[in-house]
Amino acid sequence: MTEADFLTALRTLPLHPGALGLADDAARLGELVITTDMIVEGVHFLPRDPPGDVAWKLVAANLSDLAAKGAAPEGVLLGYPLFDDAWDRGFLAGFAEALDAFACPLLGGDTVAGGRTLSLTAIGRASVSPTRGGARAGDALWVTGTIGDAGAGLAIAKGADGPPGLLARYRRPTPRLAEGFALAPHATAMMDVSDGLLLDALRMAHASGCAVTIDLAAIPLSPDYVGWSGDRLAAATAGDDYELLFALAAGATPPVPATRIGSVASGAGLGLVNDGAAVALPPRLGYAHG
Amino acid sequence: MTEADFLTALRTLPLHPGALGLADDAARLGELVITTDMIVEGVHFLPRDPPGDVAWKLVAANLSDLAAKGAAPEGVLLGYPLFDDAWDRGFLAGFAEALDAFACPLLGGDTVAGGRTLSLTAIGRASVSPTRGGARAGDALWVTGTIGDAGAGLAIAKGADGPPGLLARYRRPTPRLAEGFALAPHATAMMDVSDGLLLDALRMAHASGCAVTIDLAAIPLSPDYVGWSGDRLAAATAGDDYELLFALAAGATPPVPATRIGSVASGAGLGLVNDGAAVALPPRLGYAHG
Repeated sequence: MTEADFLTALRTLPLHPGALGLADDAARLGELVITTDMIVEGVHFLPRDPPGDVAWKLVAANLSDLAAKGAAPEGVLLGYPLFDDAWDRGFLAGFAEALDAFACPLLGGDTVAGGRTLSLTAIGRASVSPTRGGARAGDALWVTGTIGDAGAGLAIAKGADGPPGLLARYRRPTPRLAEGFALAPHATAMMDVSDGLLLDALRMAHASGCAVTIDLAAIPLSPDYVGWSGDRLAAATAGDDYELLFALAAGATPPVPATRIGSVASGAGLGLVNDGAAVALPPRLGYAHG
Repeated sequence: MTEADFLTALRTLPLHPGALGLADDAARLGELVITTDMIVEGVHFLPRDPPGDVAWKLVAANLSDLAAKGAAPEGVLLGYPLFDDAWDRGFLAGFAEALDAFACPLLGGDTVAGGRTLSLTAIGRASVSPTRGGARAGDALWVTGTIGDAGAGLAIAKGADGPPGLLARYRRPTPRLAEGFALAPHATAMMDVSDGLLLDALRMAHASGCAVTIDLAAIPLSPDYVGWSGDRLAAATAGDDYELLFALAAGATPPVPATRIGSVASGAGLGLVNDGAAVALPPRLGYAHG
Protein backbone atom coordinates (compact mmCIF):
# COMPACT_ATOMS: atom_id res chain seq x y z
CA MET A 1 0.00 0.00 0.00
CA THR A 2 1.08 3.58 -0.43
CA GLU A 3 1.34 5.86 2.58
CA ALA A 4 -1.77 7.71 1.38
CA ASP A 5 -3.80 4.47 1.08
CA PHE A 6 -2.62 3.37 4.52
CA LEU A 7 -3.61 6.72 6.04
CA THR A 8 -7.00 6.54 4.37
CA ALA A 9 -7.50 3.08 5.88
CA LEU A 10 -6.35 4.28 9.31
CA ARG A 11 -8.97 7.03 9.18
CA THR A 12 -11.72 4.36 9.11
CA LEU A 13 -10.56 3.10 12.54
CA PRO A 14 -11.91 4.47 15.81
CA LEU A 15 -10.04 7.78 16.13
CA HIS A 16 -9.44 9.71 19.33
CA PRO A 17 -10.86 13.26 19.07
CA GLY A 18 -7.32 14.48 19.74
CA ALA A 19 -6.13 12.67 16.61
CA LEU A 20 -7.64 15.61 14.67
CA GLY A 21 -8.67 13.20 11.91
CA LEU A 22 -5.01 12.21 11.40
CA ALA A 23 -4.72 15.39 9.34
CA ASP A 24 -1.99 16.95 11.46
CA ASP A 25 1.53 16.05 12.56
CA ALA A 26 0.66 15.80 16.23
CA ALA A 27 -2.20 14.68 18.44
CA ARG A 28 -3.79 16.62 21.32
CA LEU A 29 -4.60 15.23 24.74
CA GLY A 30 -5.77 18.12 26.89
CA GLU A 31 -2.79 20.47 27.09
CA LEU A 32 -0.45 17.76 25.84
CA VAL A 33 0.75 17.57 22.25
CA ILE A 34 1.99 14.14 21.15
CA THR A 35 3.90 13.10 18.04
CA THR A 36 5.72 9.95 16.99
CA ASP A 37 8.28 9.35 14.24
CA MET A 38 10.24 6.40 12.95
CA ILE A 39 13.44 6.80 10.98
CA VAL A 40 15.03 4.07 8.91
CA GLU A 41 18.64 3.65 7.80
CA GLY A 42 18.92 4.18 4.06
CA VAL A 43 15.62 6.09 3.98
CA HIS A 44 15.86 8.87 6.58
CA PHE A 45 19.58 8.75 7.27
CA LEU A 46 22.69 7.56 5.47
CA PRO A 47 24.62 4.51 6.70
CA ARG A 48 27.71 6.70 7.09
CA ASP A 49 25.97 9.51 8.97
CA PRO A 50 27.60 9.81 12.41
CA PRO A 51 25.36 8.02 14.95
CA GLY A 52 25.36 11.04 17.27
CA ASP A 53 23.95 13.13 14.43
CA VAL A 54 21.28 10.52 13.72
CA ALA A 55 20.26 10.73 17.39
CA TRP A 56 20.22 14.52 17.27
CA LYS A 57 18.10 14.51 14.14
CA LEU A 58 15.62 12.01 15.53
CA VAL A 59 15.09 14.28 18.54
CA ALA A 60 15.07 17.47 16.45
CA ALA A 61 12.57 16.14 13.89
CA ASN A 62 10.12 15.18 16.64
CA LEU A 63 10.54 18.39 18.60
CA SER A 64 10.04 20.31 15.37
CA ASP A 65 6.52 18.87 15.25
CA LEU A 66 6.03 20.18 18.79
CA ALA A 67 7.46 23.55 17.76
CA ALA A 68 4.84 23.77 15.03
CA LYS A 69 2.18 23.35 17.73
CA GLY A 70 3.76 25.97 19.98
CA ALA A 71 4.40 23.27 22.58
CA ALA A 72 7.20 23.17 25.16
CA PRO A 73 8.83 19.72 25.26
CA GLU A 74 7.66 17.62 28.21
CA GLY A 75 9.62 14.44 27.46
CA VAL A 76 10.40 11.75 24.89
CA LEU A 77 10.11 7.97 24.69
CA LEU A 78 12.81 6.23 22.64
CA GLY A 79 12.45 2.98 20.71
CA TYR A 80 16.00 1.79 20.05
CA PRO A 81 17.36 -1.29 18.29
CA LEU A 82 20.74 -2.20 19.78
CA PHE A 83 23.33 -2.28 16.99
CA ASP A 84 27.02 -2.41 17.83
CA ASP A 85 29.01 -0.96 20.65
CA ALA A 86 30.50 1.99 18.75
CA TRP A 87 27.25 2.97 17.06
CA ASP A 88 25.25 2.62 20.30
CA ARG A 89 27.73 4.78 22.22
CA GLY A 90 27.82 7.40 19.50
CA PHE A 91 24.04 7.44 19.40
CA LEU A 92 23.79 7.88 23.17
CA ALA A 93 26.27 10.77 23.14
CA GLY A 94 24.29 12.65 20.48
CA PHE A 95 21.00 11.77 22.16
CA ALA A 96 22.26 13.23 25.44
CA GLU A 97 23.46 16.38 23.66
CA ALA A 98 20.12 16.88 21.95
CA LEU A 99 18.05 16.34 25.11
CA ASP A 100 20.29 18.80 26.89
CA ALA A 101 20.19 21.35 24.05
CA PHE A 102 16.39 21.34 23.96
CA ALA A 103 15.87 20.96 27.73
CA CYS A 104 13.86 17.82 27.11
CA PRO A 105 14.00 14.94 29.63
CA LEU A 106 13.69 11.25 28.83
CA LEU A 107 10.36 9.70 29.81
CA GLY A 108 10.87 6.09 28.78
CA GLY A 109 11.44 3.75 25.92
CA ASP A 110 12.16 0.28 24.69
CA THR A 111 15.26 -1.41 23.31
CA VAL A 112 15.11 -4.30 20.87
CA ALA A 113 17.45 -6.42 18.82
CA GLY A 114 17.21 -5.77 15.10
CA GLY A 115 17.99 -3.42 12.26
CA ARG A 116 18.47 0.30 12.52
CA THR A 117 14.87 1.48 12.60
CA LEU A 118 14.52 4.06 15.35
CA SER A 119 11.35 5.35 16.91
CA LEU A 120 10.73 8.37 19.09
CA THR A 121 7.54 9.67 20.67
CA ALA A 122 7.65 13.23 21.94
CA ILE A 123 5.19 14.85 24.32
CA GLY A 124 4.86 18.58 24.76
CA ARG A 125 2.60 20.99 26.55
CA ALA A 126 0.77 23.93 24.99
CA SER A 127 -2.25 26.00 25.90
CA VAL A 128 -2.79 27.32 22.35
CA SER A 129 -1.98 25.09 19.41
CA PRO A 130 -2.51 25.88 15.72
CA THR A 131 -3.23 23.06 13.27
CA ARG A 132 -2.11 22.97 9.65
CA GLY A 133 -5.75 23.36 8.60
CA GLY A 134 -6.67 26.85 9.81
CA ALA A 135 -5.38 29.08 6.98
CA ARG A 136 -8.03 31.41 5.53
CA ALA A 137 -8.35 33.22 2.22
CA GLY A 138 -6.58 36.56 2.55
CA ASP A 139 -3.92 35.29 4.98
CA ALA A 140 -0.26 35.83 4.21
CA LEU A 141 2.12 32.88 4.24
CA TRP A 142 5.40 33.13 6.16
CA VAL A 143 8.41 30.99 6.95
CA THR A 144 11.10 31.20 9.64
CA GLY A 145 14.84 31.00 8.91
CA THR A 146 16.26 29.97 5.55
CA ILE A 147 15.21 27.20 3.18
CA GLY A 148 17.31 24.70 1.22
CA ASP A 149 20.34 24.49 3.49
CA ALA A 150 19.59 20.93 4.62
CA GLY A 151 19.06 19.81 1.02
CA ALA A 152 22.50 21.14 0.15
CA GLY A 153 23.82 19.44 3.30
CA LEU A 154 22.42 16.11 2.11
CA ALA A 155 24.27 16.49 -1.20
CA ILE A 156 27.44 17.30 0.76
CA ALA A 157 26.90 14.24 3.02
CA LYS A 158 26.74 12.18 -0.18
CA GLY A 159 30.09 13.52 -1.39
CA ALA A 160 29.55 16.94 -2.97
CA ASP A 161 31.80 19.82 -1.99
CA GLY A 162 30.35 22.50 0.25
CA PRO A 163 30.72 24.37 3.54
CA PRO A 164 30.31 22.55 6.90
CA GLY A 165 27.50 24.91 7.90
CA LEU A 166 25.23 23.42 5.23
CA LEU A 167 26.16 19.86 6.27
CA ALA A 168 25.30 20.77 9.86
CA ARG A 169 21.87 22.00 8.80
CA TYR A 170 21.22 18.48 7.41
CA ARG A 171 22.78 16.52 10.26
CA ARG A 172 21.99 18.73 13.27
CA PRO A 173 18.79 20.64 12.55
CA THR A 174 17.28 22.87 15.23
CA PRO A 175 13.57 22.64 16.02
CA ARG A 176 12.15 26.17 16.19
CA LEU A 177 10.65 25.74 19.67
CA ALA A 178 10.85 29.33 20.86
CA GLU A 179 9.55 30.61 17.52
CA GLY A 180 6.67 28.12 17.56
CA PHE A 181 5.71 29.09 21.09
CA ALA A 182 5.72 32.78 20.18
CA LEU A 183 3.81 32.24 16.93
CA ALA A 184 1.15 29.82 18.22
CA PRO A 185 -1.33 32.45 19.49
CA HIS A 186 -1.09 34.40 16.20
CA ALA A 187 -0.79 31.82 13.41
CA THR A 188 -4.03 30.69 11.77
CA ALA A 189 -2.16 27.59 10.55
CA MET A 190 1.33 26.31 11.27
CA MET A 191 3.45 23.27 10.42
CA ASP A 192 7.11 22.44 10.20
CA VAL A 193 8.85 22.23 6.82
CA SER A 194 10.21 18.70 6.95
CA ASP A 195 9.55 17.24 3.51
CA GLY A 196 10.04 20.26 1.26
CA LEU A 197 8.52 23.75 1.31
CA LEU A 198 6.30 23.23 -1.75
CA LEU A 199 5.01 19.82 -0.61
CA ASP A 200 4.34 21.04 2.93
CA ALA A 201 2.64 24.21 1.64
CA LEU A 202 0.40 22.05 -0.57
CA ARG A 203 -0.48 19.99 2.51
CA MET A 204 -1.42 23.16 4.37
CA ALA A 205 -3.56 24.24 1.40
CA HIS A 206 -5.35 20.86 1.35
CA ALA A 207 -5.91 20.81 5.11
CA SER A 208 -7.18 24.40 5.11
CA GLY A 209 -9.43 24.02 2.06
CA CYS A 210 -7.70 26.98 0.42
CA ALA A 211 -5.29 27.73 -2.41
CA VAL A 212 -1.75 28.75 -1.58
CA THR A 213 0.60 30.72 -3.83
CA ILE A 214 4.33 30.91 -3.15
CA ASP A 215 6.72 33.45 -4.64
CA LEU A 216 9.99 31.69 -5.50
CA ALA A 217 11.85 35.00 -5.43
CA ALA A 218 10.76 35.60 -1.83
CA ILE A 219 12.03 32.29 -0.41
CA PRO A 220 14.76 33.15 2.11
CA LEU A 221 18.18 31.65 1.26
CA SER A 222 21.27 31.66 3.44
CA PRO A 223 24.52 33.27 2.21
CA ASP A 224 26.08 29.78 2.35
CA TYR A 225 23.35 28.40 0.11
CA VAL A 226 23.57 31.28 -2.35
CA GLY A 227 27.31 30.64 -2.56
CA TRP A 228 26.80 26.90 -2.97
CA SER A 229 24.20 26.96 -5.76
CA GLY A 230 21.47 29.48 -5.03
CA ASP A 231 18.99 27.25 -6.90
CA ARG A 232 15.60 28.46 -5.61
CA LEU A 233 13.51 25.60 -6.99
CA ALA A 234 15.91 23.04 -5.49
CA ALA A 235 15.66 24.83 -2.14
CA ALA A 236 11.85 24.87 -2.30
CA THR A 237 11.66 21.11 -2.92
CA ALA A 238 14.42 19.88 -0.57
CA GLY A 239 13.50 18.38 2.78
CA ASP A 240 14.78 18.48 6.37
CA ASP A 241 14.68 22.25 6.86
CA TYR A 242 12.63 22.06 10.09
CA GLU A 243 11.69 25.71 9.74
CA LEU A 244 8.12 26.76 10.53
CA LEU A 245 5.62 27.54 7.77
CA PHE A 246 2.70 29.59 9.03
CA ALA A 247 -0.21 31.74 7.94
CA LEU A 248 -1.07 35.11 9.48
CA ALA A 249 -4.03 37.37 8.90
CA ALA A 250 -3.28 40.01 6.26
CA GLY A 251 -1.43 42.94 7.77
CA ALA A 252 -0.33 41.06 10.89
CA THR A 253 3.38 41.05 11.69
CA PRO A 254 5.00 37.93 13.15
CA PRO A 255 6.51 38.30 16.65
CA VAL A 256 9.72 36.54 15.52
CA PRO A 257 12.01 37.01 12.50
CA ALA A 258 10.33 35.47 9.45
CA THR A 259 9.93 36.03 5.73
CA ARG A 260 6.68 36.52 3.86
CA ILE A 261 6.76 34.05 0.97
CA GLY A 262 3.20 33.87 -0.31
CA SER A 263 -0.50 34.17 0.17
CA VAL A 264 -3.66 32.18 0.81
CA ALA A 265 -6.75 32.53 -1.39
CA SER A 266 -10.06 30.75 -1.86
CA GLY A 267 -9.76 27.74 -4.13
CA ALA A 268 -7.49 24.72 -3.88
CA GLY A 269 -3.97 23.60 -4.59
CA LEU A 270 -0.58 25.26 -4.90
CA GLY A 271 0.57 27.95 -7.27
CA LEU A 272 4.11 29.15 -7.89
CA VAL A 273 5.20 32.57 -9.10
CA ASN A 274 8.59 34.20 -9.56
CA ASP A 275 8.56 37.96 -9.09
CA GLY A 276 4.93 38.03 -10.20
CA ALA A 277 5.19 35.70 -13.23
CA ALA A 278 3.55 32.25 -13.00
CA VAL A 279 5.97 29.31 -12.89
CA ALA A 280 5.05 25.68 -13.63
CA LEU A 281 5.16 23.37 -10.59
CA PRO A 282 8.08 20.94 -10.70
CA PRO A 283 7.19 17.23 -10.98
CA ARG A 284 8.48 16.56 -7.45
CA LEU A 285 7.39 18.98 -4.70
CA GLY A 286 9.41 17.37 -1.90
CA TYR A 287 10.28 14.09 -0.20
CA ALA A 288 7.18 11.99 0.39
CA HIS A 289 9.25 9.11 1.80
CA GLY A 290 6.98 8.68 4.82
CA MET B 1 26.05 -2.87 23.96
CA THR B 2 23.74 -5.11 25.92
CA GLU B 3 20.27 -3.91 26.82
CA ALA B 4 21.37 -3.62 30.46
CA ASP B 5 24.41 -1.46 29.52
CA PHE B 6 22.24 0.72 27.29
CA LEU B 7 19.67 1.20 30.07
CA THR B 8 22.45 2.06 32.52
CA ALA B 9 23.70 4.70 30.07
CA LEU B 10 20.18 6.06 29.52
CA ARG B 11 19.82 6.53 33.29
CA THR B 12 22.69 9.05 33.18
CA LEU B 13 20.62 11.29 30.84
CA PRO B 14 18.23 13.96 32.15
CA LEU B 15 15.22 11.88 33.23
CA HIS B 16 11.67 13.12 33.61
CA PRO B 17 10.38 12.50 37.18
CA GLY B 18 7.61 10.45 35.55
CA ALA B 19 10.23 8.14 34.05
CA LEU B 20 10.47 6.60 37.55
CA GLY B 21 14.19 6.08 37.02
CA LEU B 22 13.46 3.88 33.96
CA ALA B 23 12.81 1.08 36.46
CA ASP B 24 9.23 0.45 35.39
CA ASP B 25 7.41 -0.54 32.20
CA ALA B 26 5.54 2.74 31.88
CA ALA B 27 6.04 6.43 32.56
CA ARG B 28 3.70 8.75 34.45
CA LEU B 29 2.60 12.20 33.34
CA GLY B 30 -0.02 13.42 35.82
CA GLU B 31 -2.89 10.96 35.48
CA LEU B 32 -1.51 9.64 32.20
CA VAL B 33 0.45 6.40 31.94
CA ILE B 34 2.66 6.10 28.85
CA THR B 35 4.48 3.09 27.41
CA THR B 36 6.24 2.38 24.12
CA ASP B 37 7.26 -0.90 22.49
CA MET B 38 8.99 -1.91 19.31
CA ILE B 39 8.62 -5.37 17.83
CA VAL B 40 10.91 -6.82 15.17
CA GLU B 41 10.26 -9.61 12.70
CA GLY B 42 12.32 -12.66 13.59
CA VAL B 43 12.72 -11.45 17.18
CA HIS B 44 9.24 -10.73 18.55
CA PHE B 45 7.15 -12.38 15.84
CA LEU B 46 7.66 -15.09 13.24
CA PRO B 47 7.79 -14.24 9.54
CA ARG B 48 4.83 -16.59 8.98
CA ASP B 49 2.68 -15.20 11.81
CA PRO B 50 -0.53 -13.78 10.27
CA PRO B 51 -0.14 -9.98 10.02
CA GLY B 52 -3.48 -9.40 11.75
CA ASP B 53 -2.21 -11.37 14.73
CA VAL B 54 1.04 -9.37 14.76
CA ALA B 55 -1.07 -6.20 14.91
CA TRP B 56 -3.22 -7.62 17.69
CA LYS B 57 -0.19 -8.63 19.68
CA LEU B 58 1.50 -5.25 19.27
CA VAL B 59 -1.61 -3.59 20.71
CA ALA B 60 -2.12 -6.21 23.40
CA ALA B 61 1.51 -6.12 24.60
CA ASN B 62 1.37 -2.33 25.02
CA LEU B 63 -2.04 -2.31 26.68
CA SER B 64 -0.83 -5.05 29.01
CA ASP B 65 1.72 -2.54 30.35
CA LEU B 66 -1.20 -0.16 30.95
CA ALA B 67 -3.17 -2.95 32.62
CA ALA B 68 -0.31 -3.46 35.05
CA LYS B 69 -0.65 0.21 36.01
CA GLY B 70 -4.40 -0.03 36.43
CA ALA B 71 -4.84 2.43 33.54
CA ALA B 72 -7.74 2.69 31.12
CA PRO B 73 -6.49 3.03 27.52
CA GLU B 74 -6.69 6.59 26.25
CA GLY B 75 -5.18 6.03 22.79
CA VAL B 76 -2.23 4.68 20.82
CA LEU B 77 0.29 6.05 18.32
CA LEU B 78 1.47 3.61 15.65
CA GLY B 79 4.84 3.58 13.90
CA TYR B 80 4.38 1.45 10.80
CA PRO B 81 6.77 0.49 8.00
CA LEU B 82 4.80 -0.10 4.80
CA PHE B 83 5.54 -3.62 3.58
CA ASP B 84 3.37 -5.14 0.85
CA ASP B 85 -0.27 -4.82 0.04
CA ALA B 86 -1.42 -8.13 1.53
CA TRP B 87 0.60 -7.76 4.72
CA ASP B 88 -0.45 -4.13 5.18
CA ARG B 89 -4.14 -4.97 4.73
CA GLY B 90 -3.92 -7.94 7.07
CA PHE B 91 -2.17 -5.78 9.64
CA LEU B 92 -4.83 -3.08 9.39
CA ALA B 93 -7.64 -5.61 9.84
CA GLY B 94 -6.09 -7.03 13.01
CA PHE B 95 -5.20 -3.56 14.27
CA ALA B 96 -8.83 -2.46 13.85
CA GLU B 97 -10.06 -5.58 15.66
CA ALA B 98 -7.69 -5.03 18.57
CA LEU B 99 -8.55 -1.33 18.97
CA ASP B 100 -12.22 -2.26 18.91
CA ALA B 101 -11.79 -5.15 21.35
CA PHE B 102 -10.01 -2.99 23.91
CA ALA B 103 -12.07 0.18 23.26
CA CYS B 104 -8.87 2.05 22.47
CA PRO B 105 -8.91 4.81 19.83
CA LEU B 106 -6.04 5.74 17.53
CA LEU B 107 -4.27 8.99 18.43
CA GLY B 108 -1.69 9.24 15.68
CA GLY B 109 1.37 7.69 14.17
CA ASP B 110 3.91 7.61 11.42
CA THR B 111 4.45 5.40 8.38
CA VAL B 112 7.85 4.77 6.85
CA ALA B 113 9.42 2.66 4.14
CA GLY B 114 11.61 -0.12 5.48
CA GLY B 115 11.75 -3.47 7.19
CA ARG B 116 9.17 -4.90 9.50
CA THR B 117 10.05 -3.14 12.75
CA LEU B 118 6.85 -1.87 14.31
CA SER B 119 6.47 0.67 17.06
CA LEU B 120 3.51 1.52 19.25
CA THR B 121 3.14 4.08 22.01
CA ALA B 122 0.12 3.65 24.27
CA ILE B 123 -1.31 6.24 26.63
CA GLY B 124 -3.69 5.40 29.43
CA ARG B 125 -5.27 7.18 32.36
CA ALA B 126 -5.17 6.08 35.99
CA SER B 127 -5.65 7.79 39.32
CA VAL B 128 -3.85 5.05 41.29
CA SER B 129 -0.95 3.24 39.73
CA PRO B 130 1.27 0.60 41.36
CA THR B 131 4.91 0.23 40.29
CA ARG B 132 6.86 -2.99 40.17
CA GLY B 133 8.95 -1.79 43.10
CA GLY B 134 6.46 -1.62 45.99
CA ALA B 135 6.40 -5.22 47.26
CA ARG B 136 7.17 -5.55 50.97
CA ALA B 137 8.40 -8.41 53.14
CA GLY B 138 5.37 -10.38 54.27
CA ASP B 139 3.32 -9.76 51.11
CA ALA B 140 1.86 -12.65 49.18
CA LEU B 141 2.55 -12.97 45.45
CA TRP B 142 -0.34 -13.60 43.06
CA VAL B 143 -0.92 -14.02 39.35
CA THR B 144 -4.04 -13.72 37.18
CA GLY B 145 -5.12 -16.39 34.66
CA THR B 146 -2.92 -19.28 33.61
CA ILE B 147 0.78 -19.38 32.79
CA GLY B 148 2.64 -21.16 29.97
CA ASP B 149 -0.10 -21.20 27.33
CA ALA B 150 1.64 -18.67 25.08
CA GLY B 151 4.93 -20.57 25.33
CA ALA B 152 3.15 -23.70 24.13
CA GLY B 153 1.50 -21.57 21.41
CA LEU B 154 4.92 -20.42 20.21
CA ALA B 155 6.04 -24.05 19.88
CA ILE B 156 2.84 -24.77 17.95
CA ALA B 157 3.42 -21.74 15.69
CA LYS B 158 6.85 -23.21 14.94
CA GLY B 159 5.33 -26.54 13.88
CA ALA B 160 4.55 -28.61 17.00
CA ASP B 161 1.14 -30.26 17.35
CA GLY B 162 -1.28 -28.73 19.80
CA PRO B 163 -4.74 -27.22 20.26
CA PRO B 164 -5.68 -23.90 18.61
CA GLY B 165 -6.49 -22.39 21.99
CA LEU B 166 -2.81 -22.44 22.95
CA LEU B 167 -1.77 -20.97 19.59
CA ALA B 168 -4.31 -18.19 20.13
CA ARG B 169 -2.79 -17.37 23.53
CA TYR B 170 0.51 -16.74 21.70
CA ARG B 171 -0.91 -14.89 18.71
CA ARG B 172 -3.86 -13.03 20.27
CA PRO B 173 -3.08 -12.36 23.92
CA THR B 174 -5.51 -10.32 26.03
CA PRO B 175 -4.22 -7.47 28.20
CA ARG B 176 -5.82 -7.77 31.64
CA LEU B 177 -7.18 -4.22 31.68
CA ALA B 178 -10.23 -4.77 33.90
CA GLU B 179 -8.19 -6.87 36.32
CA GLY B 180 -5.43 -4.25 36.45
CA PHE B 181 -7.91 -1.48 37.12
CA ALA B 182 -9.53 -3.47 39.95
CA LEU B 183 -6.19 -4.51 41.45
CA ALA B 184 -4.41 -1.14 41.25
CA PRO B 185 -5.69 0.28 44.56
CA HIS B 186 -4.81 -2.95 46.42
CA ALA B 187 -1.55 -4.23 44.91
CA THR B 188 1.67 -3.11 46.60
CA ALA B 189 3.50 -3.98 43.35
CA MET B 190 2.23 -5.04 39.93
CA MET B 191 3.68 -5.81 36.49
CA ASP B 192 2.66 -7.83 33.49
CA VAL B 193 4.23 -11.22 32.81
CA SER B 194 5.65 -10.67 29.36
CA ASP B 195 9.11 -12.24 29.40
CA GLY B 196 8.57 -15.26 31.68
CA LEU B 197 7.10 -15.57 35.17
CA LEU B 198 10.44 -16.29 36.89
CA LEU B 199 12.32 -13.51 35.09
CA ASP B 200 9.55 -10.98 35.74
CA ALA B 201 9.26 -12.05 39.40
CA LEU B 202 13.02 -11.57 39.79
CA ARG B 203 12.64 -8.08 38.32
CA MET B 204 9.91 -7.32 40.85
CA ALA B 205 12.17 -8.60 43.64
CA HIS B 206 15.06 -6.38 42.43
CA ALA B 207 12.87 -3.31 42.07
CA SER B 208 11.26 -3.85 45.47
CA GLY B 209 14.52 -4.60 47.30
CA CYS B 210 13.04 -7.87 48.57
CA ALA B 211 13.36 -11.61 48.04
CA VAL B 212 10.61 -13.46 46.22
CA THR B 213 9.85 -17.17 46.48
CA ILE B 214 7.62 -18.92 43.96
CA ASP B 215 6.00 -22.31 44.48
CA LEU B 216 6.16 -24.22 41.19
CA ALA B 217 3.28 -26.46 42.28
CA ALA B 218 1.03 -23.42 42.74
CA ILE B 219 1.52 -21.95 39.25
CA PRO B 220 -1.89 -22.03 37.54
CA LEU B 221 -1.96 -24.10 34.35
CA SER B 222 -4.80 -24.35 31.83
CA PRO B 223 -6.40 -27.74 31.04
CA ASP B 224 -5.09 -27.30 27.48
CA TYR B 225 -1.56 -26.82 28.75
CA VAL B 226 -1.77 -29.76 31.14
CA GLY B 227 -2.94 -31.90 28.21
CA TRP B 228 -0.18 -30.56 25.94
CA SER B 229 2.80 -31.05 28.27
CA GLY B 230 2.03 -29.86 31.77
CA ASP B 231 5.72 -28.94 32.20
CA ARG B 232 5.67 -26.46 35.10
CA LEU B 233 9.22 -25.21 34.74
CA ALA B 234 8.70 -24.60 31.00
CA ALA B 235 5.52 -22.66 31.82
CA ALA B 236 7.31 -20.56 34.43
CA THR B 237 10.08 -19.55 31.99
CA ALA B 238 8.02 -19.04 28.81
CA GLY B 239 7.12 -15.52 27.72
CA ASP B 240 4.14 -13.70 26.23
CA ASP B 241 1.57 -14.62 28.89
CA TYR B 242 0.47 -11.02 29.51
CA GLU B 243 -1.06 -12.02 32.84
CA LEU B 244 -0.61 -9.73 35.85
CA LEU B 245 1.88 -10.56 38.61
CA PHE B 246 1.12 -8.65 41.80
CA ALA B 247 1.86 -8.50 45.50
CA LEU B 248 -0.81 -8.07 48.20
CA ALA B 249 -0.44 -7.57 51.90
CA ALA B 250 -0.61 -10.87 53.82
CA GLY B 251 -4.22 -11.92 54.38
CA ALA B 252 -5.67 -9.63 51.69
CA THR B 253 -7.85 -11.23 49.03
CA PRO B 254 -7.66 -10.01 45.42
CA PRO B 255 -10.87 -8.47 44.00
CA VAL B 256 -10.53 -10.54 40.79
CA PRO B 257 -9.84 -14.25 40.18
CA ALA B 258 -6.15 -14.92 40.77
CA THR B 259 -3.84 -17.60 42.16
CA ARG B 260 -1.44 -17.22 45.05
CA ILE B 261 1.93 -18.48 43.79
CA GLY B 262 4.49 -17.27 46.30
CA SER B 263 5.64 -14.86 48.93
CA VAL B 264 7.83 -11.83 49.51
CA ALA B 265 10.48 -11.73 52.26
CA SER B 266 13.34 -9.50 53.31
CA GLY B 267 16.53 -10.23 51.37
CA ALA B 268 17.14 -10.31 47.64
CA GLY B 269 16.71 -12.50 44.60
CA LEU B 270 14.38 -15.29 43.57
CA GLY B 271 13.82 -18.67 45.19
CA LEU B 272 11.90 -21.59 43.77
CA VAL B 273 10.15 -24.36 45.72
CA ASN B 274 7.95 -27.25 44.69
CA ASP B 275 5.40 -28.24 47.32
CA GLY B 276 7.73 -26.95 50.02
CA ALA B 277 11.00 -28.45 48.75
CA ALA B 278 13.66 -26.09 47.36
CA VAL B 279 14.27 -26.40 43.59
CA ALA B 280 17.35 -25.07 41.77
CA LEU B 281 16.69 -22.11 39.45
CA PRO B 282 16.90 -23.05 35.76
CA PRO B 283 19.74 -21.40 33.77
CA ARG B 284 17.22 -19.35 31.75
CA LEU B 285 14.45 -17.58 33.68
CA GLY B 286 12.66 -16.14 30.63
CA TYR B 287 13.12 -14.26 27.39
CA ALA B 288 15.38 -11.24 27.82
CA HIS B 289 15.19 -10.42 24.11
CA GLY B 290 14.59 -6.73 24.75
